[in-house]
Amino acid sequence: MNMKININADVGESFGRWQMGSDDELMPLIDSASIACGMHAGDPSVMSGAVKRAIKYGVSIGAHPGFNDLWGFGRRAIRMAPLDVEHLVLYQIGAMQAIARAHGAKVAHVKPHGALNNMAHDDTELANALARAVHAADSDLIFVASVGSQMAAAAKSVGLRVANEVYADRRYGAAGQLLPRERAGALISNPAEAVAHVLRMIQHQAIFSIEDESVPAKIHTVCVHGDGPHALSIAAAVRAALNQANMRLVSLDRAVE
Amino acid sequence: MNMKININADVGESFGRWQMGSDDELMPLIDSASIACGMHAGDPSVMSGAVKRAIKYGVSIGAHPGFNDLWGFGRRAIRMAPLDVEHLVLYQIGAMQAIARAHGAKVAHVKPHGALNNMAHDDTELANALARAVHAADSDLIFVASVGSQMAAAAKSVGLRVANEVYADRRYGAAGQLLPRERAGALISNPAEAVAHVLRMIQHQAIFSIEDESVPAKIHTVCVHGDGPHALSIAAAVRAALNQANMRLVSLDRAVE
Amino acid sequence: MNMKININADVGESFGRWQMGSDDELMPLIDSASIACGMHAGDPSVMSGAVKRAIKYGVSIGAHPGFNDLWGFGRRAIRMAPLDVEHLVLYQIGAMQAIARAHGAKVAHVKPHGALNNMAHDDTELANALARAVHAADSDLIFVASVGSQMAAAAKSVGLRVANEVYADRRYGAAGQLLPRERAGALISNPAEAVAHVLRMIQHQAIFSIEDESVPAKIHTVCVHGDGPHALSIAAAVRAALNQANMRLVSLDRAVE
Amino acid sequence: MNMKININADVGESFGRWQMGSDDELMPLIDSASIACGMHAGDPSVMSGAVKRAIKYGVSIGAHPGFNDLWGFGRRAIRMAPLDVEHLVLYQIGAMQAIARAHGAKVAHVKPHGALNNMAHDDTELANALARAVHAADSDLIFVASVGSQMAAAAKSVGLRVANEVYADRRYGAAGQLLPRERAGALISNPAEAVAHVLRMIQHQAIFSIEDESVPAKIHTVCVHGDGPHALSIAAAVRAALNQANMRLVSLDRAVE
Repeated sequence: MNMKININADVGESFGRWQMGSDDELMPLIDSASIACGMHAGDPSVMSGAVKRAIKYGVSIGAHPGFNDLWGFGRRAIRMAPLDVEHLVLYQIGAMQAIARAHGAKVAHVKPHGALNNMAHDDTELANALARAVHAADSDLIFVASVGSQMAAAAKSVGLRVANEVYADRRYGAAGQLLPRERAGALISNPAEAVAHVLRMIQHQAIFSIEDESVPAKIHTVCVHGDGPHALSIAAAVRAALNQANMRLVSLDRAVE
Repeated sequence: MNMKININADVGESFGRWQMGSDDELMPLIDSASIACGMHAGDPSVMSGAVKRAIKYGVSIGAHPGFNDLWGFGRRAIRMAPLDVEHLVLYQIGAMQAIARAHGAKVAHVKPHGALNNMAHDDTELANALARAVHAADSDLIFVASVGSQMAAAAKSVGLRVANEVYADRRYGAAGQLLPRERAGALISNPAEAVAHVLRMIQHQAIFSIEDESVPAKIHTVCVHGDGPHALSIAAAVRAALNQANMRLVSLDRAVE
Repeated sequence: MNMKININADVGESFGRWQMGSDDELMPLIDSASIACGMHAGDPSVMSGAVKRAIKYGVSIGAHPGFNDLWGFGRRAIRMAPLDVEHLVLYQIGAMQAIARAHGAKVAHVKPHGALNNMAHDDTELANALARAVHAADSDLIFVASVGSQMAAAAKSVGLRVANEVYADRRYGAAGQLLPRERAGALISNPAEAVAHVLRMIQHQAIFSIEDESVPAKIHTVCVHGDGPHALSIAAAVRAALNQANMRLVSLDRAVE
Repeated sequence: MNMKININADVGESFGRWQMGSDDELMPLIDSASIACGMHAGDPSVMSGAVKRAIKYGVSIGAHPGFNDLWGFGRRAIRMAPLDVEHLVLYQIGAMQAIARAHGAKVAHVKPHGALNNMAHDDTELANALARAVHAADSDLIFVASVGSQMAAAAKSVGLRVANEVYADRRYGAAGQLLPRERAGALISNPAEAVAHVLRMIQHQAIFSIEDESVPAKIHTVCVHGDGPHALSIAAAVRAALNQANMRLVSLDRAVE
């Protein structure tokens, strides 16, 4: 096997005096960083720090826009008008672009966060709003989306490149959708299990559900969450396993070529 | 007299369901709009609406970043670390740039808002933080600053163009600084008085204090506030008077040439 | 006809420099005021001002807690854990109680705002969370709830007094639920129509849907919204009509006796 | 020596998914807990959890109101009108009272947080605003204030009981004021040093400055910060030392008798 693959993770999720994640340890284990944009996590100084850290480790920079909900960490569904979502996401991407620019860097991808990502998975209107926002911010941006999501379709329809994503630490339902966090078995905390889960999906280029159904899928990137207690060990194990399987770990633009 | 001059105003200061100002009436009376960036006023959808309106009226677009304080409308001094201010301002400019870009427009200037503007008037460290943020966002941006302020000096020192600003509706102290809003006589609400105040400053290229001292000043732009009860009548009167005095009302980049 | 009835309205919906509603004109036209508690509208100083105004006009004071969403004015559904909603509402009621106490007054009722009210209409878990919060804050509080809602049931089940509410300016669906604001015909802006709507519901002690079905309902209070352009004229017309029909306009505790 | 003394600490400083401090370990080491009220830290659910934990450990409950500034953790000076501060603090105390009441408990003291506490130390107007807010919320509340502060004077003048506080982990200036956190030597991180510092102040009933000047002071309570890396070891060491010195560790109302 000599395939290209990318590992991405959410980083920059601290806020003010509150720390989250271990970005310094995680950065060397990933290829692309999705940096929180101040609405669900990540104040402007945290964003700047995350950009610096990404540059230091040669990790490409992504914007990770979410709902305007610090208390809920962007994980609560909020029923906003699609146009408001479009503006909210554009706002966050722009903020991240300026902060990246200040460090001589560029935002390479966008990945919606949390409940926004979950809602837009199936909601065409929301997905279109997100695609328009990303395209308007920079038509060269890569949209990181779950396989089979409305977001992947919407992003393609406006001419954006799409990176299909699978999660190393999350189980799927029958249609290839993420199981909600509160569902039993939804979260994978064992690194060996995460490795098996990832390798199987990449080798078969398919998503496997918790009930073992499969949905064919071209896979460009593997997400490891940055904030769980097992984030580092899962990321390290997945990276080692992908290397060992002779996959080429590449940046997102190479992965989607 | 055949001088160039610019009129700017703060716009886009509504938030969600709360309206402020009469942007549709004000836009035809100004040359440059300083649009609130979501922190002290202006949600992302209000920002987008303000950009559209500016384009419609041929008014150039500016970012008007302020402290993160909706309750205080950015008018309360907040003692932040200069580096945090730098990131906060960069964040807001970037957000505005993306929203402008989505409408095919460009942010042409930056003017700090409220207490941030007041504090950076005399605070070199803050002024430098602002200048760095503006320069990092786009070195072609024009920094709109009060005459004689630390901001004007800081912006020049990083190579930014500076537009010197006077207020049509505010009185000055002896050193050319704005009198605080709560001081008697600080606010001008009578259009005829505002006109006399503006014409005198432009004709003498000097700032006149409430006690009638003068400080020489090259003046590029006149600010009329967008949110007071007299905003429209003052803007209309000042514009008419400047036209009548055969001044050329121009965009900021022409004004600072 | 010599029935008791109460008129309530939402007030205190300004925030910082943003004004909303005409509380001074509305207060003389109502019996009970539901005051925003700082999360969707109403900062602490606005809350204090609203309490003073209610006392001045002999209007009884209610807490009007909503989602933590200034941008959306509490009108966006947010999927929160019921326990978080319980704490959020308790928090807001407590804040209002302290501000009332500072003016020598007491919070007499609680009415959930906007999307929170809409969601809890049919959601038993949310309704129970609200009832628990209100009861914990003060078991003497009256819960103002739409007729037939899960909130009315939940409030009764914990031993709270419930005031059944109808809207003067909103149309209903077949099951007695409020039509969503965006539905054609949902909003009533004509005072004469509002009067006819209210009188018919009170006289028949039933809710009439937009399709003219009726649902029997004991009605204790009529809500007029405080923030629409027709708020004052509707409130004045409804009050005059109820007086003319010889109804006794009373406080909520009298209405629910 | 058989004196009464109280140990207090700030707790409940987590927010949403962000954890801060080790409240479960700290609670057994203190007598009174100052719980953050949602503005600088502590969401409503965190507040409720902190109240439950205090009850479990027999620790009395205090409200710890601060500026409305999550990003700055309430440690940035914000120039608010004293009346707005009064309402903001009243709001927070009321919220905490309702949450305490829901658990069958009562708020026993109030201690202003961070920059608000620092500013009101010397600012008579602010101190009076705080005293009025506390008194209005409940005239039985104990105001925890630094020795010699304007707050102590203001609280006494409205008839509140005052608990004079010293810090185990902070050094003082010549007038008995706290040294700013950024000053060299301001923070004490060594438990043995903290113990010596505390014992000396209590035994001499005086505050000793970093330059060894002393200011006489009746001391009722010792504060250990809840959020530093040394919080637990300092609290444990101070408690053990006070016990060993035969002091009686008591609740605040006993301490101020």
